Amino acid sequence: MLYIIGLGLCDETDITVKGLEAIKSCERVYLEAYTSILMVPKEQLEKFYGKELIIADREMVESQSDEILLNANSLNIAFLVVGDPFGATTHTDLVIRARELNIPVTVIHNASIINAIGACGLQLYNFGQTISIPFFTDTWKPDSFYDRIKENKDLGLHTLCLLGKKIYEPPRYMAINKAIQQLFEIEETRNQKVYTTESLAIGIARLGSSTDQKIKVGTLNQLLSQDFGPPLHSLVIVGSRVHILEIDFMRFFAVDKQLYNEIVKKDYGI
Amino acid sequence: MLYIIGLGLCDETDITVKGLEAIKSCERVYLEAYTSILMVPKEQLEKFYGKELIIADREMVESQSDEILLNANSLNIAFLVVGDPFGATTHTDLVIRARELNIPVTVIHNASIINAIGACGLQLYNFGQTISIPFFTDTWKPDSFYDRIKENKDLGLHTLCLLGKKIYEPPRYMAINKAIQQLFEIEETRNQKVYTTESLAIGIARLGSSTDQKIKVGTLNQLLSQDFGPPLHSLVIVGSRVHILEIDFMRFFAVDKQLYNEIVKKDYGI
Repeated sequence: MLYIIGLGLCDETDITVKGLEAIKSCERVYLEAYTSILMVPKEQLEKFYGKELIIADREMVESQSDEILLNANSLNIAFLVVGDPFGATTHTDLVIRARELNIPVTVIHNASIINAIGACGLQLYNFGQTISIPFFTDTWKPDSFYDRIKENKDLGLHTLCLLGKKIYEPPRYMAINKAIQQLFEIEETRNQKVYTTESLAIGIARLGSSTDQKIKVGTLNQLLSQDFGPPLHSLVIVGSRVHILEIDFMRFFAVDKQLYNEIVKKDYGI
Repeated sequence: MLYIIGLGLCDETDITVKGLEAIKSCERVYLEAYTSILMVPKEQLEKFYGKELIIADREMVESQSDEILLNANSLNIAFLVVGDPFGATTHTDLVIRARELNIPVTVIHNASIINAIGACGLQLYNFGQTISIPFFTDTWKPDSFYDRIKENKDLGLHTLCLLGKKIYEPPRYMAINKAIQQLFEIEETRNQKVYTTESLAIGIARLGSSTDQKIKVGTLNQLLSQDFGPPLHSLVIVGSRVHILEIDFMRFFAVDKQLYNEIVKKDYGI
């Protein structure tokens, strides 16, 4: 059996009881290490799970998947993924290959940013498509995410922006401040007023950490100068479809409550 | 401390280790019982958690929230929610009330249909807004979801349809077949060709169950006559933005592989 197990958002205790039991039954346990990291070191996970972890990078999963799947017809093998197994990128290749080899696959789900983002107070129903903002270089500034934000915005929907995920390199983490700089840069070039310095947004750092989560609500300009601390960061651009309860909920996180009330009145009529 | 704890998708072992530890520290444990249910009886949860559960219906949460929050400044109180605490409806009222009373709130996340739906093989990036299809009556056939599906479709995005959730009544569960009948009924009235009997869709039953999950891919017409068994059911209407790996992944679930290949060639050019 191949178990694909979500580890959740933060630390070793975010795994489900079902997931932990599955790991304990496994002969080999791989830790996917190319899309995201938990907030704790590998050794801490190993101690808690009572198993040694084999780091599986992108290349290993793509070119040596048969090695991962070796004897999975008779033994239990686990492949651990931060968040949910299907949270951001799917592990499509590995599952398809397992099926070709007639290896049974069991997925054990967990929280990921895609659903936990509801913690910011916005209804998940009113989110449009999720986007990723990549690191710009001097010569490479892909801006298709701008069109996606516009599509969401035109429907009144919120946009969840995942920051700086790089699949083919060791993971780098983009700070909210950097993401906002890049958003401003693209708005200046494209100039379709998809958002402005005064647009309402939510910065989220270390989502799901019971001790260290940080959520701040303000204009993009306000959030630009906020210190959100260590990774992982995400950003939500708030759409026009908001309920008064969502406005009340977000107020708690406002960087400046007075300015928040002014914006809400001006932009949302609430 | 008020803990708001997600229970995940299926049974008592889907809780996280962190969530289980929190429950064990609590004086009173409430189980939210008005939006959804797990696939196991309350007694099974009580035995596993080692705690008695107090059922909290919608009315209790709305009108007696202070009773739930009683002494939460000095004691630990847990409020258990199927899926993720912010999975489908937020528990906004309760959290806002707790903040007013200066009671610290800790949220412990878990999987919900919103992220676990990735198990069907479609990238979460390409989903638009999520909709709910309510039970029609002879005189009440709200069809605003049709506009939402159209908005998603016009952008090439998939639509996740949650079925039959009723907030102010004991939960009723709509079968996929019933949902498709209602979809056809509305298409006939609105007639904007947002979908047809031949549109590609995915029926999902008991998502996250390691023994009993059922995923079937086919046209709406094909899925109409499939037996998906007991609740919970969901439906995805597939948009036009699909990658070849997603097509390969879905093929595994096709009701009729030959017809699937024909549709994929005709509608998606793959």
